[in-house]
Amino acid sequence: MQEQVIQYLKNHREEHLNQLKEFLAIPSISALSEHHDDVVKAAEWVKDDLLKSGFDKAEVMPTDGKPVVYGEVIKNSDAPTVLIYGHYDVQPVDPVELWDSEPFDATIRDNKLYARGATDDKGQVFMHMKVMEAVLNTVDTPPVNFKVLIEGEEEIGSPTLPKFSEEHQEMLSADLIVVSDSALIEKGKPTITYGLRGLAGIQIDVKGAKGDLHSGEYGGGVMNPIHALVKILDSFRDENNKVLVDGFYDNIPELSGEEREALASVPFDEEKLRQDLEVPELTGEAGYSYVERTSVRPTLEINGIYGGFQGEGIKTVLPSEATTKITCRLVPDQDPEEIVELLTKHVEKNKPKGVEVKVTPFDKGKPYVTPFDHPVIQTAAKAYEKVYNEETAYIRGGGSIPIVAELDRILQVPVVLMGFGLPDENLHAPNEHFHLENFDKGMETLAHYWFMLEDVK
Amino acid sequence: MQEQVIQYLKNHREEHLNQLKEFLAIPSISALSEHHDDVVKAAEWVKDDLLKSGFDKAEVMPTDGKPVVYGEVIKNSDAPTVLIYGHYDVQPVDPVELWDSEPFDATIRDNKLYARGATDDKGQVFMHMKVMEAVLNTVDTPPVNFKVLIEGEEEIGSPTLPKFSEEHQEMLSADLIVVSDSALIEKGKPTITYGLRGLAGIQIDVKGAKGDLHSGEYGGGVMNPIHALVKILDSFRDENNKVLVDGFYDNIPELSGEEREALASVPFDEEKLRQDLEVPELTGEAGYSYVERTSVRPTLEINGIYGGFQGEGIKTVLPSEATTKITCRLVPDQDPEEIVELLTKHVEKNKPKGVEVKVTPFDKGKPYVTPFDHPVIQTAAKAYEKVYNEETAYIRGGGSIPIVAELDRILQVPVVLMGFGLPDENLHAPNEHFHLENFDKGMETLAHYWFMLEDVK
Repeated sequence: MQEQVIQYLKNHREEHLNQLKEFLAIPSISALSEHHDDVVKAAEWVKDDLLKSGFDKAEVMPTDGKPVVYGEVIKNSDAPTVLIYGHYDVQPVDPVELWDSEPFDATIRDNKLYARGATDDKGQVFMHMKVMEAVLNTVDTPPVNFKVLIEGEEEIGSPTLPKFSEEHQEMLSADLIVVSDSALIEKGKPTITYGLRGLAGIQIDVKGAKGDLHSGEYGGGVMNPIHALVKILDSFRDENNKVLVDGFYDNIPELSGEEREALASVPFDEEKLRQDLEVPELTGEAGYSYVERTSVRPTLEINGIYGGFQGEGIKTVLPSEATTKITCRLVPDQDPEEIVELLTKHVEKNKPKGVEVKVTPFDKGKPYVTPFDHPVIQTAAKAYEKVYNEETAYIRGGGSIPIVAELDRILQVPVVLMGFGLPDENLHAPNEHFHLENFDKGMETLAHYWFMLEDVK
Repeated sequence: MQEQVIQYLKNHREEHLNQLKEFLAIPSISALSEHHDDVVKAAEWVKDDLLKSGFDKAEVMPTDGKPVVYGEVIKNSDAPTVLIYGHYDVQPVDPVELWDSEPFDATIRDNKLYARGATDDKGQVFMHMKVMEAVLNTVDTPPVNFKVLIEGEEEIGSPTLPKFSEEHQEMLSADLIVVSDSALIEKGKPTITYGLRGLAGIQIDVKGAKGDLHSGEYGGGVMNPIHALVKILDSFRDENNKVLVDGFYDNIPELSGEEREALASVPFDEEKLRQDLEVPELTGEAGYSYVERTSVRPTLEINGIYGGFQGEGIKTVLPSEATTKITCRLVPDQDPEEIVELLTKHVEKNKPKGVEVKVTPFDKGKPYVTPFDHPVIQTAAKAYEKVYNEETAYIRGGGSIPIVAELDRILQVPVVLMGFGLPDENLHAPNEHFHLENFDKGMETLAHYWFMLEDVK
């Protein structure tokens, strides 16, 4: 049966790639309000495609924020029901001048598809859509029932989806949740992510005088908001890159020797990465390896800073304002709400005299970790291995999909994080792309998985 | 005689204001290369006006940078020769959204003229031009010979004028230099600036990975250039706002008790300033008063900082680059070249691992101080007092006119800094303006000064 599905995908490959390009052309940037209509357009696109594929039902459902696409096709009450989660929104594209091709005009070079959203997450959502289309067009009784939940706010931290999921618990009920929004640990190596870091962030706005001042007339006598901001920001981490916020590390259990050994066994070449990134050295929290620093240890990163004169040449100005955005990646059992409180207290404690400081919290997501010996996870690993001919790696991801912890909490079923990206695909950065090798192999893996799940129930 | 001159100015006031608006309409921003043609246009405007006023000679002369306007009218070999220095270039106008009227469409509100350059320095240059026009149109033998040197690079630190002045020493020779590019210490109080701070600056560019990275995938394992920059910047000043650069204060003599007393006697209301600026408190280098901090003490100010995501909402990016611009105001006898070296060494010493740091020096000007008991300075004070009916204050200015120390060195004649601005006229900031009360009184003061100088020689 899966052979027919896989053959269907091969037969329609070019048509599917053209559809994907159409999907990627919609600039559905959730962080920028001027793209609101594009976000809605992308939701409509997904819904229309699901209906064309043979879904019983598909609709664009309102939330308190951007809409959610929900669809279902339930033909076999004996079969397990899979809820496929993904997102159709994308990150902003700046600095746009660093892209080698237009971010919303998908281009194939070297068997890689370049576009914003190619790997995160439109490309992977689209793979699910096409595998389901193939199943519905080739077999009479699908091996599983499909529900899909595709949201438009993942890149801004899924602020409204938890409430939506709570309100639609019955509609979303399933035997397992499958999420393809992550990457293989390296080319050719099947990878299941069994943990994710959480997220908590703040914006800090520092205000000095009511307007910009001449640095000659006033310089030395009025606190410069950039200096004040720099002092606050420098107080966040010590020279060993430990976070100095009181209580930041309090709820994190020490890593066991066993866990550290398991992490050390993940294939990883630090020197190759250093060369690829073109940095003089890899640095991070003292006492931990690169893999630990980027998966099981929390972080505090400044994502942006701005103040004063930005033009060419110089302007001897003492600016009126300076601002920064910070996010932390969290690990079990750090609580995002509590971390935001600790960050806010820290700013309050470290702010210099002579300026006003405002802290705005944003973007909270709980960290997530799940036992990877569950049968639906083990079956996913086997489906991968059928296609990739390599043993599956189990890793904890450094990124955050805040909704995963929420869906786990609300729906109380295992979440299988099987992604098909690669680590160097520039997600959130210029020249985002997706390796088409994994587009093909990934869809084949999913086709196998649905038929293998029949036997698990 | 000066009565006729003053009457001429009164009769032509409206015509003159319209001419000034025309001059202010030229966006001659020297820092931005896209305004190069406007800078040249402003030079032509000054030259044409001098010729119309009756100058023997006026020309736009090339330099290695923006052109210089030189003009002269020499009718009396027995009279002293005055070299009037000023600049026709202006500061950038951003953030332009904070202006209440268009920066290059001069508007009068409450007897104040609002426009970029209104007080710094087109307005004050224009006053000199019109007083000379009045003199040349009302008396047969002017009381002094006039030479004018109006440059187009003051706002970027006069990089080419010293060389130009050295090459044209004979042409520029005079008995005194008069500069109107400063302010009264307060409304109605004549003020001669007998010292100026110097200027030295650097730009710091920090480079991390070759491109922006996802803060989840790489966060914690790769040095964030904003964090590196923050660490460097925070190392520049301690919590008492002392500059921590080794050797920074080495050549500065301690202030004598007498100087401190003189500075303390300058009329100044700190609480009023605090309220005007809307800051919680005035702060600065511990152990010094506000007036000392802003005139006789050196400073280090961050003029701008930039890195990472700047848009609305959040973007969990680990940026590739961060940059900052810093300038120092210097006091005698700090040497700008040496200070740039000290700053560069400091950055080198304090840069974190894992990033590349580039330092670019810019904008150097020596500090300046002159004895204020020279007869031409004392006569300027008397001219002021005739019009303002208030005793003249002698102050050391916090700003920098780097060319003043250079002209002093090259031409070896006293420099009289008599300005007609006011401290709250927003120079270098949005809503720059000029009080027309001082436009009128200032021109009257200059008319008196030229006739009083006859007796000094």
